[in-house]
Amino acid sequence: MSEPIFSRIAIIGVGLIGSSIARAAVEYGAAGEVILYDADTGVRARSEEIGLGTVAPTLEAAVSDADCVIVCVPVGAIGAVAAGAVPNMKYGAILTDVGSVKSEAAKALHAASDGRIHVIPGHPIAGTEQSGPDAGFATLFRGAWHILTPLSGQDEAYQTATDALAAFWKQLGARVEAMDSGRHDRVLAITSHLPHLIAFNIVTTAFDLESVEEGEVVKYSAGGFRDFTRIAASDPVMWRDVFLNNKDAVLECLGRFSEDLAVLQRAIRWGDGDTLIREFTRARTIRKAIIDAGQDSRAVNFGRNSPETEDED
Amino acid sequence: MSEPIFSRIAIIGVGLIGSSIARAAVEYGAAGEVILYDADTGVRARSEEIGLGTVAPTLEAAVSDADCVIVCVPVGAIGAVAAGAVPNMKYGAILTDVGSVKSEAAKALHAASDGRIHVIPGHPIAGTEQSGPDAGFATLFRGAWHILTPLSGQDEAYQTATDALAAFWKQLGARVEAMDSGRHDRVLAITSHLPHLIAFNIVTTAFDLESVEEGEVVKYSAGGFRDFTRIAASDPVMWRDVFLNNKDAVLECLGRFSEDLAVLQRAIRWGDGDTLIREFTRARTIRKAIIDAGQDSRAVNFGRNSPETEDED
Repeated sequence: MSEPIFSRIAIIGVGLIGSSIARAAVEYGAAGEVILYDADTGVRARSEEIGLGTVAPTLEAAVSDADCVIVCVPVGAIGAVAAGAVPNMKYGAILTDVGSVKSEAAKALHAASDGRIHVIPGHPIAGTEQSGPDAGFATLFRGAWHILTPLSGQDEAYQTATDALAAFWKQLGARVEAMDSGRHDRVLAITSHLPHLIAFNIVTTAFDLESVEEGEVVKYSAGGFRDFTRIAASDPVMWRDVFLNNKDAVLECLGRFSEDLAVLQRAIRWGDGDTLIREFTRARTIRKAIIDAGQDSRAVNFGRNSPETEDED
Repeated sequence: MSEPIFSRIAIIGVGLIGSSIARAAVEYGAAGEVILYDADTGVRARSEEIGLGTVAPTLEAAVSDADCVIVCVPVGAIGAVAAGAVPNMKYGAILTDVGSVKSEAAKALHAASDGRIHVIPGHPIAGTEQSGPDAGFATLFRGAWHILTPLSGQDEAYQTATDALAAFWKQLGARVEAMDSGRHDRVLAITSHLPHLIAFNIVTTAFDLESVEEGEVVKYSAGGFRDFTRIAASDPVMWRDVFLNNKDAVLECLGRFSEDLAVLQRAIRWGDGDTLIREFTRARTIRKAIIDAGQDSRAVNFGRNSPETEDED
């Protein structure tokens, strides 16, 4: 095992991501000590109970001796957490986050900064549909991308801090990439934010369809619907904040999505099979590219038909 | 192992479903003999090569001595296959199908019928994103629903035939349910057809987004997008036929979906977080119901984070 990158990290917000970082930092020796804080007393108690690390009684106490403070709260709460953390942080420490929107997260972090610390926003492209301190696990970031959106034109100390933060994430098993925050938000709008919105929406549509009962939707969900329900089970507060903080890019994607859907709708209405075949054939090709890039399992049907899965049924 | 339900079945169309039935019928002893036919000579040769059963040189030869003929072709091709099959079928034999749309499939089957045979349409709610004779496997139907849409007001011989067909599917491991074809088409429009249309569409939208490169979409697809690409990899011809043959129910669902999406879009534009929280919270509940009903794996992230999956990465 390599040397710890940081002697002490502070994780603020102990949900799926925060608790996964805590577990991974210990498991892969990326931090000497893990301090945790969550605004929710129940979450703090639970974090202590399951041994995620040293749980601090206050935000101030959690960050005061940390080399790296990782803010793992919904995007809308990053500003308030950063404002409470920064005055108590060590000179030269790193302040980062894991928010799914980077332009607004960076603004919130920078607004709180006093120039004594290094603000380096980040976003791990990893997660599950579950939430809370029990949902995390050490291997969550293995093979996943971690995007950093460092400021440009900074001094050498900032570059050294950025390198250390990248090394930390690599030690958790992630592949690290640097990107401009605006670009991040445009890319994630289509690869993550729009898919979640669509998934939430189709479930709502199914609920409200008077001609079909909810029990039937559940019963026959293996026809395709169940695939959407996984990401629709994600945390509502986190996702509200994503949409409200990446409004322009999401609305742009959504406009194009609706436009494209209108083309398919018209083709169905007028019996234009050629258009359907053309678009479906185009769509089909991307699956192979994603599997070849190691971004999803090669197993058909998400491995649901493997013997293990079936025994559970 | 139980007695075979049918001495001889004929499977017309050797794709994912046809080849899975062939494998399952042998594996679970549901048929004494399996005869296969596909209009594509390459598929016939491949079916022979991988030992799926006895491959007949013509449709007529395949069906002439079968107790049950199972038409496993896209919905738009069912009529032509049935027309070729019926005059060559034995008196009292069963003609069924596996089409994802039942009203139009039933019409096509009945149009071909001469009254000497029993027409009993059916649809297994099972599948994967792959196609062709190599894609099938014996356990595909285990634990899955199989919907039959038998005619009402038929004689006793018809009821006996329906019972035999239900017993056949149960022997393959399916749970069998009878339903009116119109109801089937409305239920499947929301649980299967709309999800596929949305999945095809979002991939198209991603391709055409000039501000994001295709490589980035693939690279960061773990943010949620990859979930949609699985069903978007399904067979284009099969799906064209589904949409063209279940037009009314699909357009109805699609209209509601777009309406609901407009509400979310407006909430995002105007910063109405309460609406987003309300709808996302509602959507989240269905996942648990689907898992509790045994309609999806309990494993988080479709089991992608299991040790086996990770070793592949």
